[in-house]
Amino acid sequence: FHPSHSIFSLPPVDKESLQNQIDELSTFSDTPAPSVTRILYTENDVLARRYIKGLMGQAGLSVHEDAVGNIFGRWNGSDPELGAVATGSHIDAIPYSGKYDGVVGVLGALEAINVLKRAGFQPKRSLEVILFTSEEPTRFGISCLGSRLLAGSEALVHVLKESVDDQNTSFFDAARSAGYAISQENLSNVMLKKGSYFAFLELHIEQGPLLEEEGVSIGIVTAIAAPASIKVEFEGNGGHAGAVLMPERNDAGLAAAELALAVEKHVLETGSVDTVGTVGIIVLHPGAINSIPSKSHVEIDTRDIDEKRRDAVIEKIHQSSIEVSRRRGVKLSEFRIVNQDPPAKSEHSIINAMEDVVQQLNLSHKLMISRAYHDSLFMARVSPMGMIFIPCYKGYSHKPEEYASIVDIANGVNVLALTLAKLSLD
Amino acid sequence: FHPSHSIFSLPPVDKESLQNQIDELSTFSDTPAPSVTRILYTENDVLARRYIKGLMGQAGLSVHEDAVGNIFGRWNGSDPELGAVATGSHIDAIPYSGKYDGVVGVLGALEAINVLKRAGFQPKRSLEVILFTSEEPTRFGISCLGSRLLAGSEALVHVLKESVDDQNTSFFDAARSAGYAISQENLSNVMLKKGSYFAFLELHIEQGPLLEEEGVSIGIVTAIAAPASIKVEFEGNGGHAGAVLMPERNDAGLAAAELALAVEKHVLETGSVDTVGTVGIIVLHPGAINSIPSKSHVEIDTRDIDEKRRDAVIEKIHQSSIEVSRRRGVKLSEFRIVNQDPPAKSEHSIINAMEDVVQQLNLSHKLMISRAYHDSLFMARVSPMGMIFIPCYKGYSHKPEEYASIVDIANGVNVLALTLAKLSLD
Ligand SMILES: [Mn+2]
Ligand SMILES: [Mn+2]
Ligand SMILES: [Mn+2]
Ligand SMILES: [Mn+2]
Repeated sequence: FHPSHSIFSLPPVDKESLQNQIDELSTFSDTPAPSVTRILYTENDVLARRYIKGLMGQAGLSVHEDAVGNIFGRWNGSDPELGAVATGSHIDAIPYSGKYDGVVGVLGALEAINVLKRAGFQPKRSLEVILFTSEEPTRFGISCLGSRLLAGSEALVHVLKESVDDQNTSFFDAARSAGYAISQENLSNVMLKKGSYFAFLELHIEQGPLLEEEGVSIGIVTAIAAPASIKVEFEGNGGHAGAVLMPERNDAGLAAAELALAVEKHVLETGSVDTVGTVGIIVLHPGAINSIPSKSHVEIDTRDIDEKRRDAVIEKIHQSSIEVSRRRGVKLSEFRIVNQDPPAKSEHSIINAMEDVVQQLNLSHKLMISRAYHDSLFMARVSPMGMIFIPCYKGYSHKPEEYASIVDIANGVNVLALTLAKLSLD
Repeated sequence: FHPSHSIFSLPPVDKESLQNQIDELSTFSDTPAPSVTRILYTENDVLARRYIKGLMGQAGLSVHEDAVGNIFGRWNGSDPELGAVATGSHIDAIPYSGKYDGVVGVLGALEAINVLKRAGFQPKRSLEVILFTSEEPTRFGISCLGSRLLAGSEALVHVLKESVDDQNTSFFDAARSAGYAISQENLSNVMLKKGSYFAFLELHIEQGPLLEEEGVSIGIVTAIAAPASIKVEFEGNGGHAGAVLMPERNDAGLAAAELALAVEKHVLETGSVDTVGTVGIIVLHPGAINSIPSKSHVEIDTRDIDEKRRDAVIEKIHQSSIEVSRRRGVKLSEFRIVNQDPPAKSEHSIINAMEDVVQQLNLSHKLMISRAYHDSLFMARVSPMGMIFIPCYKGYSHKPEEYASIVDIANGVNVLALTLAKLSLD
């Protein structure tokens, strides 16, 4: 079997087994089906990780974990000194989300390895499947925690030392409770040296509607939009909802409401469809119907394929926060840009390899931008990167209705398998 | 001792003991001092009730409780067949509030009884101290639960049968866990017959700034503003904060933000300083920074001394909910007016009795409106009613900074004691 010479020798994806694995993994959830909630270092996260390590072992991969819980399953190549070709994604799931986001790129990667093994393929460069820790920012407010750290952020090490979740559990205590013998020292050891990987690939559902609408099987990602997130807090005097008259109020909740609408306005004012901004979290304190909110907490997500345009939106959001706080007489007690990442470009040689494979497999494809970010955004800092998208139902993601057909998933696995094989011989 | 003849024989309020009781009661709290959080039927609520029953016993009152946990401490008069004169308030506290709201009217009532006993007074009509269950709507969304039921609401009995808290614990289960042997049958027995009480009085902190600003010791309430509360829910499609472009969104969170600002606008448009409206609760689902809110829950409180004007504001809020839901393409899945109560007027004869007492005691006073509602709003449906306000620091209430000086509290206790005595001989 040689990836460029013949596709007919590539054995079929085991669709039934792959679908069963996706379904089984979805049962490790804090909320009832069809929703999935799997939060970093919780019991269900630990159980799901154990399940993946088991599958890695069954696939004959040698497994190791780093201090934050990134999990690596390696198939040694005939020339193990060469940089490996890696692929992977995440299995954490935000509250009440679905079962395909991330999961397709982990279980799909393992099936790609199994397909290549069944084909009798022997890699030259080692192949590696990576499960990244906490792509989602749910618990500690930091997205792509595992890949961000792999990509070498000393600043992140400092942030993690101070991080607590909303139950005031420290990052270190949470990691230890999940069995990771983590220390301030070995946290820095997570970082990869440049050149560790020859290529990094990620298979993922599109999380947008384009492939489905256009009836295209495979999206080849050329760039990942630049994400940023912001935390804002307002503080007022609060008080009794009956007794404090309107002119005497400085309502932190209404400041939050105005800011949420200002985020939408600034995004729309760019006139660009590629600019998005979202307020997914508003928390009012004390949160009683007969109490004027004395504090509000707002979390904002904004992204763009154009980094400068996104940064201009962030600046406008900052100006609005100041203006609202002054006009309403509330204190802007926090305006913190949690992350403000640049976009990432896929490697031309990897895009070319994927296009060859897609043609070989006779699948329709298009080049596209990823508006969601992924661990690939950070892996691109330490490795040439490429991403494969497959269609998903109505573009739904981050909700229970999220769905990708097993046929589309199998197409993605085939493209991934052949691209891994190709690059491993490069 | 006769209340009209001499004030010199009224022994002093035991300020030290009363302040100690206020401080001790505040320690039954789910949140750290100086904040107080005491929620219906929780452990701290049960412990606080036990503390009050103990004080009732020490004051020589005979104690009984009804099926929802209203607690009655009675001092039998020489003519116990006559309608009693009752006074009381609540001890539940919304999250992160203070230690005087309600409490002054319960512990102050007990001290008024003690003062009259020390004076050797013998009531003709029985005197009764009432602790009302759940004046605050925190747990089941129903304000003045105890007094509302005493005032005879069969509709409320039906609502309670269906009520659950935000942990999905039913009202009945919660009441039973607090030791109340509650059933659907004995719930209806809580209701009072008209004529049970000759008069009902309530001592309370003003929860507004007027008495303190004007340097007046006692407020005599002439009317209680008409309160209403509303629950609203919006539902949209949610989705991924990166992948769903702005034109395709129907963001339930932004609908909530718009509605909150519309509430403020409609209230201000009345041009009346007596109209207030508050959004104390906004909950977004799923509540993740990278998820477009697919659901939002909003709770609105609006009040006015003019019932028609308040009802017009409610109608405008309803129209705005419909308009926002249509324009944003979200579903208005709930618009529920939880309560829409008329205002209550104090009884002229009670106001007169209080004015006499205040002059006898040589205290400054003013007639005023209560913008906050109280158990008195509902007791007024089954009994002649009057309220005594005392100053509080900056008008603060429903927050930890809430404060009333023991001198002002003692003045209120004296006015209450003499008014109780006067009415008991009527
Ligand atoms: Mn995701
Ligand atoms: Mn993902
Ligand atoms: Mn209150
Ligand atoms: Mn009160």
